[in-house]
Amino acid sequence: MSQHPFDTAVALQGQADGSFLGQTSPAYANMVGPFGGTTAAQMLQAVLLHPERLGDPVALTVNFCAAVADGAFTLQARPARTNRSTQHWTIELLQGDEVVMTATALTAVRRDTWSTNELPMPAVSTPQDTPLPAQRSAPMAFVQRYELRVVQGGFPLAWDGSDSGSSLTQLWVRDNPPRPLDFASLASLSDIFFPRIVVRRASPTPVGTVSMTIYFHADAAALARTGTGYLLGQARGQAFHNGFFDQTAQLWNEAGELLVTTHQVVYYKQ
Amino acid sequence: MSQHPFDTAVALQGQADGSFLGQTSPAYANMVGPFGGTTAAQMLQAVLLHPERLGDPVALTVNFCAAVADGAFTLQARPARTNRSTQHWTIELLQGDEVVMTATALTAVRRDTWSTNELPMPAVSTPQDTPLPAQRSAPMAFVQRYELRVVQGGFPLAWDGSDSGSSLTQLWVRDNPPRPLDFASLASLSDIFFPRIVVRRASPTPVGTVSMTIYFHADAAALARTGTGYLLGQARGQAFHNGFFDQTAQLWNEAGELLVTTHQVVYYKQ
Repeated sequence: MSQHPFDTAVALQGQADGSFLGQTSPAYANMVGPFGGTTAAQMLQAVLLHPERLGDPVALTVNFCAAVADGAFTLQARPARTNRSTQHWTIELLQGDEVVMTATALTAVRRDTWSTNELPMPAVSTPQDTPLPAQRSAPMAFVQRYELRVVQGGFPLAWDGSDSGSSLTQLWVRDNPPRPLDFASLASLSDIFFPRIVVRRASPTPVGTVSMTIYFHADAAALARTGTGYLLGQARGQAFHNGFFDQTAQLWNEAGELLVTTHQVVYYKQ
Repeated sequence: MSQHPFDTAVALQGQADGSFLGQTSPAYANMVGPFGGTTAAQMLQAVLLHPERLGDPVALTVNFCAAVADGAFTLQARPARTNRSTQHWTIELLQGDEVVMTATALTAVRRDTWSTNELPMPAVSTPQDTPLPAQRSAPMAFVQRYELRVVQGGFPLAWDGSDSGSSLTQLWVRDNPPRPLDFASLASLSDIFFPRIVVRRASPTPVGTVSMTIYFHADAAALARTGTGYLLGQARGQAFHNGFFDQTAQLWNEAGELLVTTHQVVYYKQ
């Protein structure tokens, strides 16, 4: 059985100096360069594979400082502070001598506490009752790596410049082919939403995420319960102002567990 | 005329090696150590005062790695990547040889674009029609530095352990005494909300913010329009799970401009 393309993408080679070597994945290519979600997952992977890691991911912030070039990169992950049950990480992705991405992460050993989802999963059609797109013509390879079933707020069918008044998207998503959910794939899925500004305004707009933060509410048990099931993703923009808009998003599993809340700020030119 | 206590708090002394020296401010003391919002503002200030800074803040993520001890600290801000109109920063706060906080920031030169608030300010009573608390007995000094008028979701009046089912807070807030809004004070105000879990459950709970991200939608013109006016803050938790909950929050000015969207993840023990 061949390896899942996501496992190939997040495979890193440990180096003698403690850094990791990685490669952008053609299977997760975007229009230009790699899909940012996969790059975020690769940065997290440098923590997950680190011999000094304590606990599981709770928070990850990745900053897209410059375009990642197709090819090799180096990841340097450093535990900036290790406490009894929490650990803070700083991570850099380098190509040549240039810093291309920066990141910080928090890992922690969780304990059982009172817990609740305050934000329930919206009532939407089941994945099975939500149609696949009639055609999957997106030119970017990474789109083929995800099974996307849009409930509402899909990519505009025509660039008619209309303002929909809402950037809300709800969609079901899972890896294609299906793959048991883990922290790395959850990081990648956190960036699955197409740019809010094209949902809001059906107008071609150059965009690029500049910073993304992921809060993992899922622990290992929740990942195992989710398995290869679908996630419901919801995303909306709150403010669009002079070149930057934000996105606030959530990912639930089919059972309604809120696995991730995530936010990003995106450059746009219009 | 004496200096505003916030200006005293964020005053930093540049060092020959490019770092900055700062001090925790007794005027912004929390129960133990300093108010985290003020510490976040001090970290941002190391970027704002840096001679190589390009543009104004767009994003800031601060990680509270360990308790900040009352007293002096060193701030090291480094431009990790400078592009034509954007700049990515990494920042560390040190006490002795220990990393106590890490942060990343994005500054940018903004351009006029199509802009909108997709999330309108909620319809609430005006600041003038929203009463001040009957007594301001909070033992923490920093609470006295803010004029807080709670619309809904205030600090519980009694620890009766009831579950309100909602962690939503809406409040008007400004510096006390009033001070013209700037990026540093906006960063501090982004952390003004009391812990979501005590709004949700009226039960004493040890908590501590571990990571906070701020997206600045306000530019210098919006700050000037806001001046010393009130901000409407809204905050809610989305998920509370095994030791960590999140908070998603917004700050609007009285004119309804969405100045900040901000998120944090908070450790809790219960």
